[in-house]
Amino acid sequence: MTQPTWVRLPPRTDFPVENLPYGVATHGERPAHVVTRIGDYVVSLGALAKGGLLDGTIEEPAAYFAIGTLNPFMALGAPAWAAVRARLTELFTDPERRKAVEPLLVPLTDVVLYLPFQVADYVDFYSSEDHATNLGRIFRPDGEALMPNWKHLPIGYHGRAGTVVPSGTPIVRPSGQRKAPTDEEPRFGPSVRLDIEAEVGFVIGTPSPLGGGVRVEEFQDHVFGVVLVNDWSARDIQAWEYVPLGPFLGKSFATSVSPWVVPLAALQDARVAPPYQDPVPLPYLQGETWGYNILMEVKLNGHTVSTPPFAGLYWTPAQQLAHMTVNGASLRTGDFYASGTVSGPLPEQRGSFIELTWNGTEPLALADGSTRTFLVDGDTVAIGGVAPGPNGARIGFGEVVGTIHSAVRQPEL
Amino acid sequence: MTQPTWVRLPPRTDFPVENLPYGVATHGERPAHVVTRIGDYVVSLGALAKGGLLDGTIEEPAAYFAIGTLNPFMALGAPAWAAVRARLTELFTDPERRKAVEPLLVPLTDVVLYLPFQVADYVDFYSSEDHATNLGRIFRPDGEALMPNWKHLPIGYHGRAGTVVPSGTPIVRPSGQRKAPTDEEPRFGPSVRLDIEAEVGFVIGTPSPLGGGVRVEEFQDHVFGVVLVNDWSARDIQAWEYVPLGPFLGKSFATSVSPWVVPLAALQDARVAPPYQDPVPLPYLQGETWGYNILMEVKLNGHTVSTPPFAGLYWTPAQQLAHMTVNGASLRTGDFYASGTVSGPLPEQRGSFIELTWNGTEPLALADGSTRTFLVDGDTVAIGGVAPGPNGARIGFGEVVGTIHSAVRQPEL
Repeated sequence: MTQPTWVRLPPRTDFPVENLPYGVATHGERPAHVVTRIGDYVVSLGALAKGGLLDGTIEEPAAYFAIGTLNPFMALGAPAWAAVRARLTELFTDPERRKAVEPLLVPLTDVVLYLPFQVADYVDFYSSEDHATNLGRIFRPDGEALMPNWKHLPIGYHGRAGTVVPSGTPIVRPSGQRKAPTDEEPRFGPSVRLDIEAEVGFVIGTPSPLGGGVRVEEFQDHVFGVVLVNDWSARDIQAWEYVPLGPFLGKSFATSVSPWVVPLAALQDARVAPPYQDPVPLPYLQGETWGYNILMEVKLNGHTVSTPPFAGLYWTPAQQLAHMTVNGASLRTGDFYASGTVSGPLPEQRGSFIELTWNGTEPLALADGSTRTFLVDGDTVAIGGVAPGPNGARIGFGEVVGTIHSAVRQPEL
Repeated sequence: MTQPTWVRLPPRTDFPVENLPYGVATHGERPAHVVTRIGDYVVSLGALAKGGLLDGTIEEPAAYFAIGTLNPFMALGAPAWAAVRARLTELFTDPERRKAVEPLLVPLTDVVLYLPFQVADYVDFYSSEDHATNLGRIFRPDGEALMPNWKHLPIGYHGRAGTVVPSGTPIVRPSGQRKAPTDEEPRFGPSVRLDIEAEVGFVIGTPSPLGGGVRVEEFQDHVFGVVLVNDWSARDIQAWEYVPLGPFLGKSFATSVSPWVVPLAALQDARVAPPYQDPVPLPYLQGETWGYNILMEVKLNGHTVSTPPFAGLYWTPAQQLAHMTVNGASLRTGDFYASGTVSGPLPEQRGSFIELTWNGTEPLALADGSTRTFLVDGDTVAIGGVAPGPNGARIGFGEVVGTIHSAVRQPEL
């Protein structure tokens, strides 16, 4: 049983009072505000602040919430996040608060959701052993599936922050250079191997100084919350460009994130033991750490094609954060790092079409009778996820959705 | 002869009235303003605006210049840049302006310079054929020096925008994992192969929309100006981590930029024919394009160790920009892309120590009698550059300087 609230919730909602994620929304003509969600209602924290209902949590709450981005609030740090979350919980559970708060409930269908935070730097890891092994087997069938460094450090790279977009943003098929093994020369045109990557993303609130470094144990002091990510990938562009400096245009055209940032506090009951790591990592990657039991679901045109389990990721989010900063790199509020494609050991747990169709050689049979290797124009991909909360609650993220639009740049351009 | 100005200039100054770069500075207790430089004087555009001296150029000039970042001005676009530049030229050349402007001249030594723009995304290319060939020969002595894709597209990757720092910022030696060929296992500790990369950087003013793309011919509509870059690199960290997703912690600890953004307009006379490109690039990389004749100088502890010529870069800045956006990636004001290490064909034109010392096997003999392979604590590297301007003027950038500080993270941490 979830915690009693006076708000009327749908059965088995992903947004019980144990969740209370943060987003940014407009309602009619009103300017964008920070909002939370409970059941199928959205509540403006800007409106709560203006009504005095957040007094005593942080100084001047309206300055942080009656605006269209989470960044200033995220920068306040973990004690401020805890204070506001405690108050929101009280507002939705104390029957005496109902009279003041209920008029501020707005149906979800009446608001427009935006990218909830301004992205500073975006880093993408590659931390699912099953995913890395699958790609190794596909591309190097006769070699070792994993690179020699893979079990010693969380491999990652920087992605393009400026093309991180909110769920629902149309995904224009990218054009670029590609060269199939049978091609004499590279050619230009729309990608013919457009793919997804189902990932989980972590949003930095508290910054850290240049020359410093965040230890594994300091994870919860810096990470504000969690989103779902679709790191769209053009496999043909990527394959031709990525040696030796890594992915670039094959990834930089769009990265979609879910509209709700789930506070780390809402995922306390979803913590699971990290996977067994052999070899033992170097000391800077050791310390108390955990995974999160987030079960993802990938839907293509409404039909489930995969259920990747985030719980099994080899490297934990805290290890990723410690690695990312061990060289003295600073953190800024709004930095955002994603797990890498989440794939489980079973075929139906793979988080990308290149794995689901084994590089296009095993097309997926879809429910409508058609088959699919890579994405075609008009396809809609929705990635959801749910984690166990306290009191038997389900903690959801909302879906990260994108529909493929046809390419703008044609070969002759 | 350079254009007559009433300002007293040092002979052969790098900052004649034909330059007029933009920076951000504080003077005593006054808040940071946008400034320009002429000779060895700095002038606040905020002060000029408040004195009415920029009236008629852009709307509300003080809102753009009495602030500590160039971004809002950069976002106004090329006509605004031209209008302000024309007025500044007039202010420093028209004797009748002297009485109003002269009291605003501040000696360079009296100001503190800051990072002149907020970096949105940072992309680093790899476009010097001599550099890429040298690295190929060092790392793959028996293979082809250049990768098969190198002459078909400007190879690049995203770097960390949050650790782009202004000239003068101390460079703390990064720690990280490394594994020499003779090591059984990777180990953790301060980098022992700390290096520089002498590069030229281009700063985006005018944004472009997601799903669009900037053509080669549109380069001057989007690029506001040019800086010098030192892309500090820990070769040992980089070598262990970079397969298959490219450089990450080996680069992300710091990237230094020169304090002055030289307007593209100041470099019109430095344009040179692009290098001969064989094979002919794909159509999206064709169009009227040019290189820039910027002669760089790398000094170690005050002594010149290299003079890399930017003019010979294989891919032009306009081709890099067209490539970076051909997949529909948007541009934001403050996006910043660097050329990649600039190396010329001669040994004394190499833009990194890994090349100058041929992977550490041929130590450099320094003027003080010592030798150097990679950087040691206390070393100071200064990278300068100069380009031909109109009327025989020299267009300089100011140096990008950094001193190596000892590592904070030791092996036991």
